[in-house]
Order: sequence, then C-alpha cells, then structure tokens
Amino acid sequence: MTDLIRVDGRAADDLRPITIERGWSDQAEGSALISFGRTKVLCTASFTNGVPRWMAGKGKGWVTAEYSMLPRSTNSRMDRESVKGRIGGRTHEISRLIGRSLRAVVDMKALGENTLVIDCDVLQADGGTRTAAITGAYVAMVDAIEWGRQHKFIGQKAKPLIDSVSAVSVGIIDGTPMLDLAYTEDVRAETDMNIVVTGRGLFVEVQGTAEGAPFDRRELDALLDLGVAGGATLRDLQTAALAPVGDAASVTA
Amino acid sequence: MTDLIRVDGRAADDLRPITIERGWSDQAEGSALISFGRTKVLCTASFTNGVPRWMAGKGKGWVTAEYSMLPRSTNSRMDRESVKGRIGGRTHEISRLIGRSLRAVVDMKALGENTLVIDCDVLQADGGTRTAAITGAYVAMVDAIEWGRQHKFIGQKAKPLIDSVSAVSVGIIDGTPMLDLAYTEDVRAETDMNIVVTGRGLFVEVQGTAEGAPFDRRELDALLDLGVAGGATLRDLQTAALAPVGDAASVTA
Amino acid sequence: MTDLIRVDGRAADDLRPITIERGWSDQAEGSALISFGRTKVLCTASFTNGVPRWMAGKGKGWVTAEYSMLPRSTNSRMDRESVKGRIGGRTHEISRLIGRSLRAVVDMKALGENTLVIDCDVLQADGGTRTAAITGAYVAMVDAIEWGRQHKFIGQKAKPLIDSVSAVSVGIIDGTPMLDLAYTEDVRAETDMNIVVTGRGLFVEVQGTAEGAPFDRRELDALLDLGVAGGATLRDLQTAALAPVGDAASVTA
Amino acid sequence: MTDLIRVDGRAADDLRPITIERGWSDQAEGSALISFGRTKVLCTASFTNGVPRWMAGKGKGWVTAEYSMLPRSTNSRMDRESVKGRIGGRTHEISRLIGRSLRAVVDMKALGENTLVIDCDVLQADGGTRTAAITGAYVAMVDAIEWGRQHKFIGQKAKPLIDSVSAVSVGIIDGTPMLDLAYTEDVRAETDMNIVVTGRGLFVEVQGTAEGAPFDRRELDALLDLGVAGGATLRDLQTAALAPVGDAASVTA
Amino acid sequence: MTDLIRVDGRAADDLRPITIERGWSDQAEGSALISFGRTKVLCTASFTNGVPRWMAGKGKGWVTAEYSMLPRSTNSRMDRESVKGRIGGRTHEISRLIGRSLRAVVDMKALGENTLVIDCDVLQADGGTRTAAITGAYVAMVDAIEWGRQHKFIGQKAKPLIDSVSAVSVGIIDGTPMLDLAYTEDVRAETDMNIVVTGRGLFVEVQGTAEGAPFDRRELDALLDLGVAGGATLRDLQTAALAPVGDAASVTA
Amino acid sequence: MTDLIRVDGRAADDLRPITIERGWSDQAEGSALISFGRTKVLCTASFTNGVPRWMAGKGKGWVTAEYSMLPRSTNSRMDRESVKGRIGGRTHEISRLIGRSLRAVVDMKALGENTLVIDCDVLQADGGTRTAAITGAYVAMVDAIEWGRQHKFIGQKAKPLIDSVSAVSVGIIDGTPMLDLAYTEDVRAETDMNIVVTGRGLFVEVQGTAEGAPFDRRELDALLDLGVAGGATLRDLQTAALAPVGDAASVTA
Repeated sequence: MTDLIRVDGRAADDLRPITIERGWSDQAEGSALISFGRTKVLCTASFTNGVPRWMAGKGKGWVTAEYSMLPRSTNSRMDRESVKGRIGGRTHEISRLIGRSLRAVVDMKALGENTLVIDCDVLQADGGTRTAAITGAYVAMVDAIEWGRQHKFIGQKAKPLIDSVSAVSVGIIDGTPMLDLAYTEDVRAETDMNIVVTGRGLFVEVQGTAEGAPFDRRELDALLDLGVAGGATLRDLQTAALAPVGDAASVTA
Repeated sequence: MTDLIRVDGRAADDLRPITIERGWSDQAEGSALISFGRTKVLCTASFTNGVPRWMAGKGKGWVTAEYSMLPRSTNSRMDRESVKGRIGGRTHEISRLIGRSLRAVVDMKALGENTLVIDCDVLQADGGTRTAAITGAYVAMVDAIEWGRQHKFIGQKAKPLIDSVSAVSVGIIDGTPMLDLAYTEDVRAETDMNIVVTGRGLFVEVQGTAEGAPFDRRELDALLDLGVAGGATLRDLQTAALAPVGDAASVTA
Repeated sequence: MTDLIRVDGRAADDLRPITIERGWSDQAEGSALISFGRTKVLCTASFTNGVPRWMAGKGKGWVTAEYSMLPRSTNSRMDRESVKGRIGGRTHEISRLIGRSLRAVVDMKALGENTLVIDCDVLQADGGTRTAAITGAYVAMVDAIEWGRQHKFIGQKAKPLIDSVSAVSVGIIDGTPMLDLAYTEDVRAETDMNIVVTGRGLFVEVQGTAEGAPFDRRELDALLDLGVAGGATLRDLQTAALAPVGDAASVTA
Repeated sequence: MTDLIRVDGRAADDLRPITIERGWSDQAEGSALISFGRTKVLCTASFTNGVPRWMAGKGKGWVTAEYSMLPRSTNSRMDRESVKGRIGGRTHEISRLIGRSLRAVVDMKALGENTLVIDCDVLQADGGTRTAAITGAYVAMVDAIEWGRQHKFIGQKAKPLIDSVSAVSVGIIDGTPMLDLAYTEDVRAETDMNIVVTGRGLFVEVQGTAEGAPFDRRELDALLDLGVAGGATLRDLQTAALAPVGDAASVTA
Repeated sequence: MTDLIRVDGRAADDLRPITIERGWSDQAEGSALISFGRTKVLCTASFTNGVPRWMAGKGKGWVTAEYSMLPRSTNSRMDRESVKGRIGGRTHEISRLIGRSLRAVVDMKALGENTLVIDCDVLQADGGTRTAAITGAYVAMVDAIEWGRQHKFIGQKAKPLIDSVSAVSVGIIDGTPMLDLAYTEDVRAETDMNIVVTGRGLFVEVQGTAEGAPFDRRELDALLDLGVAGGATLRDLQTAALAPVGDAASVTA
Repeated sequence: MTDLIRVDGRAADDLRPITIERGWSDQAEGSALISFGRTKVLCTASFTNGVPRWMAGKGKGWVTAEYSMLPRSTNSRMDRESVKGRIGGRTHEISRLIGRSLRAVVDMKALGENTLVIDCDVLQADGGTRTAAITGAYVAMVDAIEWGRQHKFIGQKAKPLIDSVSAVSVGIIDGTPMLDLAYTEDVRAETDMNIVVTGRGLFVEVQGTAEGAPFDRRELDALLDLGVAGGATLRDLQTAALAPVGDAASVTA
C-alpha cells in the first residue's frame, strides 16, 4: 500500500509478529497465550454446564467475557481495580466488546444450555490489547466448545460455531492509514478504529474515534479496507493454530 | 429513500419529532431539555474556573460528561446505580462517548484553564438516549461557554468552539436501513449504529454493532449515508435553538 | 399572621406557587412533576404485583420510596452518589421519611400483595425538596393504585387509601415563623421544621431541628400552627390535581 | 401522671434505671459507659487539635459523631456494616442526630480550631439507644473539652459549653403517653418520639413519627411534656456524673 | 525464667492480670468480656439452628468468627471500616485466625447442622487483642453450645467439644523472650509470635514473624516453650470461669 | 529422609521442578516468571523514586507487595475480586506476608527514599502459590534495585540487600512430613506450614496451621527441619537465576 517504513520496520499495512500459544493453561477447558508484538494476552475459556437462572429453560447457551490488565503490564504501574474496589469504564467497555464479538459467531441454540466465560488478562501491553484479546479468545473458545462436545454437554452433530472472529486496530498517523498500531503509534494517531470481522469478512463491530481531528468518508473507507485485510490474515493464523496437532499448538506469523 | 412506513408513521429516513428546550434550568450555566420523540434528556452544563490538579499549568481546559437514567425512565423500573453502589458498564460507556464527542469540537487551548461538566440525565427513555444526550449536551455546552466568556473566564476573542456536534442512531430492520430508532425498533434491528458527526459533516465517532447477523460493506455504507443526513438536520435544529432570542429558547422540529 | 414581606413578595404564611403536572411520565403507572416555586421534583410510582420474598404470604402490600438529587439541581454541582459508590446520610434519611409518610395513609391489607416504589428525583432544588417530594409522591401513588385496580391486582371494592398526605417546611427567621422556606431562607433559619400531615389534619411526622439556638415551646407551637394550615392548602391542590379530567392533569396554585 | 404499671414495674412517666460510668476508657480523652436499663452504649470522645482542611482558618471548631451497633447487641445477630461494605440509612440518621444535638450546645468559636469526634457504640440494645447515646456523649464530650483546656488547645477562659444536652424517647402505647420506651414497648407504640432538650429545657430536636395511626395535637403536647420532664432528670444525672470526684465517676439513678 | 522486670512489674514469663466476665451479654447465647491487662474484648457467641445453604445436608455444623476494633479502642482514633466501606487486611486475617482456632476444638459432626458465629469486638486495645479474643471466644462458645443442647438443637449425648483452646503472644525484646506483650512491648519486639494451643498442650496455630531481624531456631524454641506454659495458665482460668456457678461468672487471675 | 513415593514420583523431601524465568517482562524494572511444578506466578517489581507522603523526609524507603490470582488459574473459575468490588481475606493475608518477607531482607536506609511495589499474579495454581510468589518476588526485587542503582536513585555503595529470602510449604500427610505440597497434597494435609527463610537460614515467618488435628512439638520440629532444607535449595536456584548472564536469564531445577 505504501513504502513508508514504521519505527519497527513494518510497512503501513503489516501486522506485528503474531504468536498464538494454544492450550497454554493446564486448568482451563480452552486457552491461548496470544502475542501481537510485545502485547501478550492470556485467554482462558471456562465451560460450565448450565446457564444463569434468568436464562434457564430456553434451550440456549451464554457466552460472556472479562478483560483485565495486570498492574505492571504497562510502562508505569496502574492501581489494581480490585484494590480500588471498582472497575473502570475502559475495562467494562472492552469486556463487553469481547463478549459481543464472540457471541456474533456462536449459535446459542446449538450451544445448548451451557455457559462459556472467556477471561482475557493482559500480561504485557503495547497497544492493541483488545484486538489481541478477541483474536485469542476465539481460539480458546473453540477448544472449550470442543471440550463440551467431548464431555457430551453439546450434541455430537451440533454446530455452535457459525464463523470465526478476529479483530485488529487501524489508525491514521500523519495522514497515512496504518494497520495494528503499537502503543507509541496509537498515542500519535489522529483517528483510531477497532474492527472486528468474521472469517468470511463480515463486520461484527466497527468502532472509530477521532482522537484529534474528525475524519471524512474517504479516510473511513481506507481504514475499513485495511482492517478487513488484516482480519483475513488473522483468520488464517487462527486456523493454523487450531489445526489438529494434539492438545496444544503454537503458531507464529 | 423508501416508501416503507414505520409504526409511528415515519418514513425510513425521518427523524422523530425533536424538541430542544434551551435554558431549562435556573441553576446551571447552560442547559437544554431535549426530546427525540418520547425520549427526554435533561442536559446541564456546569462551568468551573480551573482544571483538575493533574492538568493545571498547561493552559488548557477540560470537558467531561456524565450520563445516567432515572430508575423509572424505562418501561420497567431499574435499580439505581447509587443504591447498587456501582456504575454499570453501559453507563460508563455512554458517559465516555458523550465526553469524547464534545471534546472533538472544543479547542482546549482557547477554552483556557476552565472545566465543563455536562450532565445528561434521561428523564424518559424510548431509544436513542445517547444520541439525544450528545445533541442536547452541545446546546448546553455552548451556553456554558458563553457564560464563561461573559464572566471573563474565557478571553473575549477566544473561539473555543471549532464546530458543532450531534448524534443519531441508524439501524437495519428487516433489511431496510432506518434513521433514529425508537425502542421497539432498536430491539428488532439486526445492526445498530450510532454516528456522531460535526456540523461540517465529518465523523467524530462511528460505532456499529451487529446485534443479529454480521453486516457487509454495502449495508455499512447505507447506514453511514443515513446518519450523515440525520446529523445535518439535527445541526440545523441546534442552530435554531441557539438563535439569540433571549436567555432561553425552545425549538421544535 | 404578619405583614412582613419576604424576598419574593410572599407573606410569612404564604406558600410559594405550587404546580402539579400529573401524569408527566409515559412510562410509570403514576407520576407527577411538582414545583414548589423553583423547586421541581419528578415523582414516579411503579406498581408491581407481588411483594419482596420476606413479606410474601401475609396478604399485605409494601410501599417504599427513593429520593435523589440530580447533580446540577443545585447552585453548585454535587458529585453523583452513583459515582461516589455510596449513598449519603441525607439521601437515606429523606428516602426513609417519604416512605414512612406514604405508608401512613395506605392500608396494606387493602393494597394486597402488591408493591409500590415511589421515586422522587429532584430536577431543580431551591429548598423544600423533601416536602415537595412527599406532596407529589402522594399524587403519583394515587394513580398507580388506580392502575392496579384497573388491572385487577387490587380488589374493586378495596380501599387502600385511608387519607391523603402532604408536607411542608416551616422555620423561624429573625424571630418570625414562616411557611415553605426557599433555599436562601432555609440557610438563615434559626429553627427548621418539616411537618407531614394528613388531609384530615393529623400529624404523620414532626421533625424540628434547632439550626442555630434551641427553641422554646411557644415557638414550637407557632410552627405547628403554620404547618397545619399549609398542609390544608396542599391537600386542596392535590385534590384538584387528582380531579377526573382524563389521564393527566396539571394544576397551579 | 398515671397509675398504669409497665412490664418492668415502672410508672408511665418513669425513666428506666440510668447508670453513667464516666471515664470508662483509658484511651479516649473523654468517655462514658451509659445504661438506660439493659441498653448499654459506650461513648468515647476524641479530641484533635486542628480541623478538617475545608474548615481551616476560620477560628472555629468542629464536633461530629458516629453511631454503631455491635452485631450481637440485639436479640438476633445483625450483619456488620463493615462486612456489608455500606452503612445503612438508620445508622447514618442517628449519627447525624447525635452530631447536631452536641453541636447545639457548643460554641464553635470558643472551642477554637479543634475537632471532637464522639463515637457511640451500642454494646447492648433494648430500645432508646440513640437517646442513651446523646446523653452519654455529652458527658464524654465535657471531659474531652476539659482535656483540651488542660493541654492548652483551648483558651483557659474560653467557654465552649453553652448548655448541657440529653435525650429521651416518649411514645403512646394503648393511648397512654409513656417515657423512655424499652424495646418491647417501642414495638407496640402507635407514636414514637425522640426529644432532645438542653439543660435549660429548650428543644434541640423533636422527631415524632406515627408508627401506626397519625397523632393529633393533644397527643403531641402530652408527649412533649413527658419528654421535657425526662430531660430534666437526665440533666441532673449528667451533672452528678460530672461532679469533680477524680478522673472518673459512676452514677446510678 | 528470668529476673528481668518489665515496665508493669511483671517477670518475663508472667501473663498480665486476666479477667473473664462470663455471661456479660443479656442477648447472646454465650458471651464473655475478657481482659488481658488493659486490653478488653467483648466476645459474643450466636447460635443458629441450621447451616449456610452450601453446607446443608451433610450433617455437619459450622463455626465462624468476626473480629473488629472500636474506633477509639486505641490510643489515637482509627476510621471505622464500615465508614471506609471495606475491611482491612489485618481485620480479615484475625477473623480467620479466630475461626480456625475455634474450629480446631469442635467436632462438626457432633455439633450437627447448627451455626455458631463468634463476634470479638475490641473495646480497649493494649496489645494481644487477637489472643484475648481467642481465649474469650472459647468461653462464649462453650455457653452457646450448652444453650443449643438445652434447646434440643444438639443431641444430649453429643460431645461437640474435643478440647479447649486459648492463645497468647510471645516475643523477644532486647534478646529476652517474654510472655503476653503489652502494646509498648509489642512495638519494641524484634520477633513476635502468636501461639494457639489446646488444653492438652497441642498446637493449633504458630505464627511467628521477624519484625526486626530474622530469628534462629534456638529463639524459636524458647518462644514456643513460653507460649505453651502461658496457654496452660489460660486453660485453667477458662476452666474456672466455666465452673457451674449459675448463668454467669467472673474470674480474675 | 524417606523412601515414600508421592503421586508425581517425588520423595517426601523433594521440591517440585522449579523454573525461574528472570526478566520476563519488557515493562517492569525487575521481573521473574517462576514455576513450582504447575504453579506459575508472574512477579514484577516496580521501582519509583520517592516514598508515600506519610514516610517522606525520613531517608528511608518502602517495599510492598500485592498478590492476586487470575480467575481461571484454578481448576474451577473464581469470580474476580475487581468484579466483586472487594478483596478477600486470603488475598490480603498473602499480600501482607509477601511484603513482610521482602522487607525482612532490605535495609530501608540503604534503599533511600525509593518505593518498590512487587506484584505477584498467579497465572496457574497448583498449591504453593504464596511460597512461589515470595521466591520469585525476591529475584524481581533484586533486578529492580539494580535498576535503581544504575539510574542513580540508589547510592553506588549502598547495600540495600541484607540477605536473600525464599519460602516453601511443608505439611504432614498420613503422618509423614513432606516438602512443597502440590494442591492435591495440600488438601489432604493434617498440618500445613509455610516457612520463609533467609539465604543464611534464619526464619522470617513461620506459619503453621492444624487443618485437621492439632500437632505436637515433635511434628513441628520435623516440619521446620524440612523447610530449612528446602529454603537452602531455593536460595541456590535464586543465586543461579541472578548470575550475570545478560539482562534476563532462565534457570531450571
């Protein structure tokens, strides 16, 4: 797209190196430790037979997510939300976004009355934590659903997964649209957008924010193009990570 | 755009009746009671000379917003967040959205070391509370800035306002893109998008969510077109409400 | 009683202009927007069939109330209690007072196993918010009870309302007992009393506090006389507001 | 007043046995363990030189109070408010009442920039805990003020105490006005009133509540008479407890 | 052990004067006001038939404890944990320690499906509050178990008590191991240890902490010896307090 | 010590395989990802120049620690403490233990007015999380202190580290004392003890708890012997991990 070179040598339309360490956890039904460059997120998927009381008896499942950052995942230490006694708005916002993104590719009827809780804990943060979280959470969720099938909580012919889902950030820096912003880029971006797309290339969420000056339709279109292309690459990496090579597999882009 | 008729007789590209009762409050430096159909939001703007300590000494101002719903603004009563002792994720998300939208049209240097807090309290809810809130909050903010100028906290030649800002929801119902969804429409929409645009037609925020099935690029484009058109109408209503006819004025679309 | 003239031209035993906008809300089973001068309180009554679990099976209903002030209802902005994460003592005190006052005129057996929650949200404050709230809450409650009767949750011959109830503040300023204090008067009062009386003139609550010097029995008697007279006027206004002129009616004193 | 005999053998106008164990605490600047029958409240007064920042520089002091009940002070165990993470409305209400009652007899100018915090912890509850608390708190406060004088934080000629203050409950049971209700009486009372009076017999607070049927003026007058008489007895007991017989003294009525 | 004399005249291996006022409360099923010198803790035991839902149906009982300090139990006033809205780590730690200590001497099968909650409220603190609390809590618990037996909630032949339990602090000051430290000693101690022992001399808890320099095995042994001896004395005092001399008894060492 | 074989093939006095991945974090001044078998704890040390206000001006530093478990670090998912809005007693207890353990080997004068916050987040839990946390926290702290020296916040000749510190659990299972219990062993242990020892073999903390039956002096002595030996092995591993082989190093036992 452009021959402009970024601080880490990437082209404007390059993702950072992506690593997906599937099955990282010995405890969870599904898990993935995902890296987008220096950003590292541990995603665990917990499968529970049954649903919250208010949902029971409808023959449908439930998928929800919680996002959190370790206090020293960032360059300067943040106070723990557990110590402050309240969850901040940003944490709430991202937890809800992850949950909605995952639910968009799950057929709740096919899942049956089972609950999936996906925890995304940021071990190290360098921009794009929410997009890495969604991308890794999908991998963890796939394994937890498979666990549910093996343990007969999900019908052997049921197909709870409609599509795959991944997410990537895009932004405009000095007038140039760029893919997968690292933290120092994110801070400089005039416009910042998170795009959640399915494996088939449909949109689940489009969240664009003018951090500096408002943006026009042409810029919006360029960002959408970039995000859709990034999503396709991430989908391929997810597919590779989920290839049947034993209980756990690691893939690196 | 379409001859399809909605439950309240509107065409797909019609806004609901909009009323802006500017200067509703005797207490606040700026205020507006705004209605989008049956949705009613009281917006008050509080002007304080000075900024929070962590911002002091930079010659820049600060604008923030808080959104809340009265417990019986909705069809069935919700528990108060003050009683529950914590603010929910949705409230946080919308408060942050309103704040970002307003900051996008304010020149913080020109505002000087002054703080604006815009409170948006939903007195009655029927869909589109966040978009009504942003639209009304702008009107309240304009008057509070003018108050600051009259009281010499803002320089007589300073121009803190770069542009105007309004917001509107759009969605796809039964395959048809529609403007300004009422609650019963919102519940049925497959895709739901909130668009925040400036008076000049630039985007401040674009937040689209697939509630049902993911959406494609063509649908996204149709929603953006509809939102931009709605924003232009809201800008004209804001301008009319802010016309110099005394301390307070009411305008109805 | 006295020919002393107050800042707003009232005599010492005059109420401020009172407005009751019955049926303000499209959502609640009963509602009233009441004004005591510049003090404006939105009262909504929510009717629910059934009672909290700890009361079930006794054939009795329950009435409770919650009071809150919008952050910019006052001259300088207050922090939201939802943001602070805890409800202050004053809010608790007034919520409990409103609830007790309403319960004093309701026959819980006749109400049956139904719950009424009355929310009193102060949109604008200029003294006397708790007394306006009680007076408006009664009007909202009457309509919610009528709604319960029409929906067959209350027996057609049951008489849940024993009496009406209203409230007014009285105080001694510069030695003169005065009725219905506005905020600037309240601040100056040596003694401040809130009197809750029924339509028949009986006392439900008498809460007198020496803000400055303690008061003697003669002063107490004068305040009680004034409050009882004010209560009678408020009762007549409530009766007028509740006259059968359609679903909603507005009355102004 | 009446020859009706109560469950514990008292006449309608009798107080329960009152004990004031002055100087109970080795730690606090002033303290009293007060009993009204089986009701036992430990009152400690903490003297601090200086006032909260928002009050500094005005040459005036501050007096505040906190009330709490031990979880098993009552017949069935209550959850701790510290465990619940929030203070209930009743606790707030009584803490504020005690604080106002004490401030009514203190000349803040004469106290100088000093702070008194009076803690009233109910060790055992049998009705009348708030009135016992106020009565004992006054004794603790007197000693803490004297401590401040001895330590030169209060001028040697300053007279911070304007008057003494005590409190007692009165109520109507089966039509008979009665003084100082024990818990089983309180539960049965149609009307319940707490009266806070100064040593000179003036009113600081009058809080009457119709628990059952609303009350009329004649009943109100009878209750006021009874409360004023009870207050005079309590004042005499306070005076005896404070007689200069060493650092600590105990008195029993 | 040593002829070194402490500030209060005690030898290094002396306990402070111990008082146990059994049956202090008229409300609780068991209670004791215990003093270790100036440290005074009110222990109440609440007996409830039944267990928390998660324990039901197993035929076993439950014993738990809560510890708290009155705000002015200490030399300078502490903020209330109920006001702060959260319980501190130290409070949690001690509540858990007391609960574990009591459970170690109770046969939960023999207790049957009954719950004992032991509240230990520190009225005055001078070091050793947790050890006094455990020692007094045992006495209160014994009476509450006896109450349960008399009310037929516990079988007449069941023996829920396996052993008795008490606790004492030991520490090294200026190289000398000392028993039952008062606050001023505790502050100076290089090593501080709390030892919970049964009547038979077995250990329930050993918690040693190097406050200054780490300690060696020889010092540890000396502290254990001292603690075991102190525990034997406390056991004898508990036995005396529990001797059958009516509903309540007081014993002083 | 014994030829008894444990479930994972260890002898009673064997540690599990220990791994210390020093410098795991790119963000923190010091860090270590430590494993005790399947237990994995990420320890980060944050260095800040300056101390909390209440400590300023004394020329001394401060070291504190926070411990937390990821919700799915355990076999079944736990609720997040940030979501519950309060930190549990166990978390508080362990955070305090880690902080005390680290402070025991730091000379606060030599550290100067600098603050170290050590975060220990359990990524996967299989028993012994607190002992792994202390052992890894020491390694992270050493690097953060070195960072402070390189950045001139600590004097070049100052020696803030007095000794090293590590911790290990010991317990009695079926009468046999065992070292470094895995979760399934911990659950079965009659007595459970955590021992914190310095590199020189002195005790910092000894916390023994009878989970089942109380323990005698002979058992206590056996557990202490085992813990001291385990601590010596851990000290050697720490030394190896801290050997000067670049910025980060990994060591495996």
